[in-house]
Amino acid sequence: METLKVIKIGGNIIDDATSFATFVKHFASIEGPKILVHGGGNIATEMAIKMKVDVKMIEGRRVTDKETLDLITMVYAGRINKKIVASLQSNACNAIGFSGADGNAIVAVKRPVKDVDYGFVGDIVKVNTAVLDLLINHNLTPVFSAVTHDLDGQLLNTNADTVAAELAVAFAENFHTELYYCFEKKGVLLDVTDENSLVENMNQKKYDALVAHKVIADGMLPKLNNCFYAAQQKVQKVCIGNADMLYNQHAKFTKIQAT
Amino acid sequence: METLKVIKIGGNIIDDATSFATFVKHFASIEGPKILVHGGGNIATEMAIKMKVDVKMIEGRRVTDKETLDLITMVYAGRINKKIVASLQSNACNAIGFSGADGNAIVAVKRPVKDVDYGFVGDIVKVNTAVLDLLINHNLTPVFSAVTHDLDGQLLNTNADTVAAELAVAFAENFHTELYYCFEKKGVLLDVTDENSLVENMNQKKYDALVAHKVIADGMLPKLNNCFYAAQQKVQKVCIGNADMLYNQHAKFTKIQAT
Repeated sequence: METLKVIKIGGNIIDDATSFATFVKHFASIEGPKILVHGGGNIATEMAIKMKVDVKMIEGRRVTDKETLDLITMVYAGRINKKIVASLQSNACNAIGFSGADGNAIVAVKRPVKDVDYGFVGDIVKVNTAVLDLLINHNLTPVFSAVTHDLDGQLLNTNADTVAAELAVAFAENFHTELYYCFEKKGVLLDVTDENSLVENMNQKKYDALVAHKVIADGMLPKLNNCFYAAQQKVQKVCIGNADMLYNQHAKFTKIQAT
Repeated sequence: METLKVIKIGGNIIDDATSFATFVKHFASIEGPKILVHGGGNIATEMAIKMKVDVKMIEGRRVTDKETLDLITMVYAGRINKKIVASLQSNACNAIGFSGADGNAIVAVKRPVKDVDYGFVGDIVKVNTAVLDLLINHNLTPVFSAVTHDLDGQLLNTNADTVAAELAVAFAENFHTELYYCFEKKGVLLDVTDENSLVENMNQKKYDALVAHKVIADGMLPKLNNCFYAAQQKVQKVCIGNADMLYNQHAKFTKIQAT
């Protein structure tokens, strides 16, 4: 089976001009089928301030109201997505931007209201690979913003890590699929202030123990849950670390074991 | 040859919820290959005010500085494009959003500085139909915002009427191509205040006379220049009028004659 790489980048790469240029150059040179998923970055925060869109919190949870959804659609699916696509094109990578609505690629449902109404937040229910397959087979590279839709005309804000995981899982049937989460750290660290405390191999048992001891907490929890979900759904390789794990063969990072 | 319809809509359809819903429903039901090109509308102006981006004018001409380009990319390629795509999907039309950067569909050059520096405005130099052909042949409907790129990483603001004309011209080789400009009027009017003064058939001679007598002026000039350009470049049918010309067989509108 052919290898397909699903690569997710966060704000640290999008916000810094040098990191961005380096990443784009290297990403463009990766051979074979690949999909890029991007998050937001500081531009979204800057725009929210400029447009006076407040961050809405209910019981400590961020809520996506209509104004925030519009902002996310503009910044993620518009400005950042097109910036990445244009930059990849200038590096001879035939990129094509996607939200979940485009080609009906990712269908979600508005998160049901239990204790908290998260607003226009989407939980993914289906990835349609047909259009993506067609493009990938013709040497195109889909670039995803984390905006999905409900097939009823409503756009929805969706976690970019989850978008990446679900894309990787959907393609795992027909490709040897690899999933890379690129962020500002080297990977999972036992001490967040010490890059030498990297966990190079992470399995479920080790993860559960680290969570129980609160070594892994906050934003790392959903990220690692996505990692284990993908690994356990037949994504052959799941890695988390600095983007140079993609192009530096000596780079150290965290590899997730399925079991 | 199969018929391909290129349909351009402006702000009057995008801004009004009822007009938008009606248009989307009818557009979705149009059989055969089709491409939608959309302009901006009031949202762009509202956002410009919210974000305190001033309209820059030099010698009476609008200039696209970096801030304005960012705004256009967000609003046109992000918010409006995704809104249209999601709405079409909910009407069972498999739409896919495009800027000129996506799939390298439309390459432009930054307009050379002569008397006026228009800033990040793009003049189209090439339409690459390969990716669009692939999608159209698989029953997908490209939806274009009027943002192009220079293949050197720079996005460029381009006139939406021109994007529609160049797309129609590029496809005229392999399709029987029809180009429809939908706007708020019934078509070309001899008296802008009287819808009964519609010119149903417009040829170059008639056009030149009306321009000379200043009956046709302002925004209608570039629109009609795009019409004649397309008609003279083998687009088989070029029409300008209210969107109901697409679905009401009794609707009256202006038809452009190539000669």
